[in-house]
Amino acid sequence: MNIRFYNARILPMEQADGTVQTGELWVRDDRIALVGDPKGREPLAFDREIDCKGNLILPGFKNAHTHSAMTFLRSFADDKPLHNWLHEDVFPMEAHLTGDDIYALTKLAVLEYVSGGVTAAFDMYYHVERIAECARDTGFRFVICGAANDFGGTAESTRRDFERLNAFDPLVSCRIGFHAEYTTSEPLLRDLAALAGELREPVFTHLSETAAEVDGCIERTGMSPIAYLDSLGMFNYGGGGFHMVHPREGDIEIMKKRGLYVCTNPASNIKLSSGVAPIETYYREGIPVAIGTDGPASNNCLDMFREMFLTTGLQKLTVGAAAANPVRVLHSACSVGAKMMGLDQCDCLKEGKQADVVMLDLHMPNMQPINNIAKNVVYSGSKSNVALTMVAGRILYERGRYTFDVDPEEVYAKADAIIARIRKAEGR
Amino acid sequence: MNIRFYNARILPMEQADGTVQTGELWVRDDRIALVGDPKGREPLAFDREIDCKGNLILPGFKNAHTHSAMTFLRSFADDKPLHNWLHEDVFPMEAHLTGDDIYALTKLAVLEYVSGGVTAAFDMYYHVERIAECARDTGFRFVICGAANDFGGTAESTRRDFERLNAFDPLVSCRIGFHAEYTTSEPLLRDLAALAGELREPVFTHLSETAAEVDGCIERTGMSPIAYLDSLGMFNYGGGGFHMVHPREGDIEIMKKRGLYVCTNPASNIKLSSGVAPIETYYREGIPVAIGTDGPASNNCLDMFREMFLTTGLQKLTVGAAAANPVRVLHSACSVGAKMMGLDQCDCLKEGKQADVVMLDLHMPNMQPINNIAKNVVYSGSKSNVALTMVAGRILYERGRYTFDVDPEEVYAKADAIIARIRKAEGR
Repeated sequence: MNIRFYNARILPMEQADGTVQTGELWVRDDRIALVGDPKGREPLAFDREIDCKGNLILPGFKNAHTHSAMTFLRSFADDKPLHNWLHEDVFPMEAHLTGDDIYALTKLAVLEYVSGGVTAAFDMYYHVERIAECARDTGFRFVICGAANDFGGTAESTRRDFERLNAFDPLVSCRIGFHAEYTTSEPLLRDLAALAGELREPVFTHLSETAAEVDGCIERTGMSPIAYLDSLGMFNYGGGGFHMVHPREGDIEIMKKRGLYVCTNPASNIKLSSGVAPIETYYREGIPVAIGTDGPASNNCLDMFREMFLTTGLQKLTVGAAAANPVRVLHSACSVGAKMMGLDQCDCLKEGKQADVVMLDLHMPNMQPINNIAKNVVYSGSKSNVALTMVAGRILYERGRYTFDVDPEEVYAKADAIIARIRKAEGR
Repeated sequence: MNIRFYNARILPMEQADGTVQTGELWVRDDRIALVGDPKGREPLAFDREIDCKGNLILPGFKNAHTHSAMTFLRSFADDKPLHNWLHEDVFPMEAHLTGDDIYALTKLAVLEYVSGGVTAAFDMYYHVERIAECARDTGFRFVICGAANDFGGTAESTRRDFERLNAFDPLVSCRIGFHAEYTTSEPLLRDLAALAGELREPVFTHLSETAAEVDGCIERTGMSPIAYLDSLGMFNYGGGGFHMVHPREGDIEIMKKRGLYVCTNPASNIKLSSGVAPIETYYREGIPVAIGTDGPASNNCLDMFREMFLTTGLQKLTVGAAAANPVRVLHSACSVGAKMMGLDQCDCLKEGKQADVVMLDLHMPNMQPINNIAKNVVYSGSKSNVALTMVAGRILYERGRYTFDVDPEEVYAKADAIIARIRKAEGR
């Protein structure tokens, strides 16, 4: 399909630059064929031409850390700090999940992603082949992060997943990862570090999410989680940490040396009482910051608008009102996340890049008047502004309707049946 | 008009109780005629019957502190702490506003309110007669709060506004108020306290919003703003404070003694770096807490879902993961706000109460599965879930359309013209 968007405002987001272009965006099959002024360019044979009526086109949001299938625990496990939430609610309930469950629950998350302008998610969960199938069947883009830990997964299984998932479908990719330092024994960590070294791949994990995690690691190893993992050679080819709320002295130097990414998850961090990540410091130090929702059991929604507002708002609260420039936050949400996930072709609107595109309706009261579009999006934007979501040139959501092969009611019914079955099995 | 909602889930919110009823809600003219089971009740002559398909009916959100017409400064004045924001950006720009401007800009806010499930706003601004006209012309409910201060307004003008606005239209009411201790000299404060005493009325004001405000008052008077105002007899008949981020020792005792309300505005408080109000303490002490957005120049949107999530999330961050129970927060947003505003007939769904009602679409991915409806609304809800907003029995918004006499594009164009004119006059 070739699609023409015209009468558009465009935020290309190649840099953290809030300058809005006006003009057109052309899509040829899965790629962007033109951004801006079409003068002198031969028109494509367009299958569809969309009058944007001055609405805003920007790169889709990249949800750079999530556990999509945890939709089944939305509003089930709440109001507890991380450790209790994980051990009392999450682990026992998760133990009942089948591959079919994970396929169905991930599809529920995809509905939420595309209706909220998200075009790709960095997903850490189990039964990874079913997440990959969900990407293929829905048209949504998943980057799957390894989740090995002492309760499941080895370096060998991580390698197998890495190889087969990266060959599965253009919408699917995989990165080396593990659950967290505090759930993974040193022999397994060493095996994973060796694998990453052999493949020359970056490694991603939950990192320095809570003060208790960091203190526990220091007690066991004499080092912070970042320093300890780095001492094992884990980050020799880069990688990144999800959350990164509690860096300790020396950690930022390691992050800079290894080129580590941070994915911040502010809604989850406040809801679980984990703290506020020092994003303004990361920005100042040149550490690339992506943004994610974390899973729907801790958040409890998958809304990148809420995360963007919190990313800047919590810095203003803790550092000062000028902290966390909103254009930079928007760039984190659209572009830096793509780079962290290895989606170098999905980071901005530019000829030749993948057509992962969102249109936001500016003809709504929360976007008016238009004093500053980037600020409007970050400070005032909402999922209700999402008019269209396109992944790899295919429109998946438009004006309240899902335009891929899915029956939302069937997805909701399946999710309800799954949680009912597990609640019954657990007697709760 | 008589309207029947059937196949509904219903959260009456008479108490902070998340128990969901199923059944019907009947509306006769401007009032609720039935909630729950219609068995044995004579049906009304219904003009319209709405199949809710299991969706949720609850009392509309009460935006208990806002400056609606500040829409013109959305995304214009940002990234500064309160004092600089107010003196460098807000006051100079506001000086150019006419009554016509305020009517048009308030109408823009009404579009945002009703599309976000808000059925009433406690509005503090100028040219109050134009806000009242906006209520009458749109069908939205405004409670207007006096805004007297050293730059405009006297006890006499406050009394005149109080008398004429409370007689203007059933959708309009007025409460005694002033801008803030730090903008109002003691003679004027004494006059206002005398007026409130004479009328036996509560008094509302910006109160203890920033640490600097509180410190300044202590320096000038030897007392915190609450203690100082109370020493003038300001709260002899109750009242309340907007923001209330920084109570000092003894303040909570005064608040309890006088029955003061708090309206918390968490998005504005973090964005202006003012701090986090001790809501969990207020809840524990039995101080009634309402929720508001503050004006769109500081927030920058008028979204009670974001405020609800922040109200609980910031308490979890600062107190612990169990703080600020979401059902209590929902009750604050729907019911306590009504009581603070003097809207005793709009606080819950009950026979005889005003039909200020919202329907939230649960057939959307962020509301599924339905483990706990109240938690879904507070932790995961969004303006995109608002399917219908009714004020005084009249549907003002339904499924993306405004159903009162308004052309949104005309409202947006007017707001654009106003800010363009003022920017030109100010050379910025």
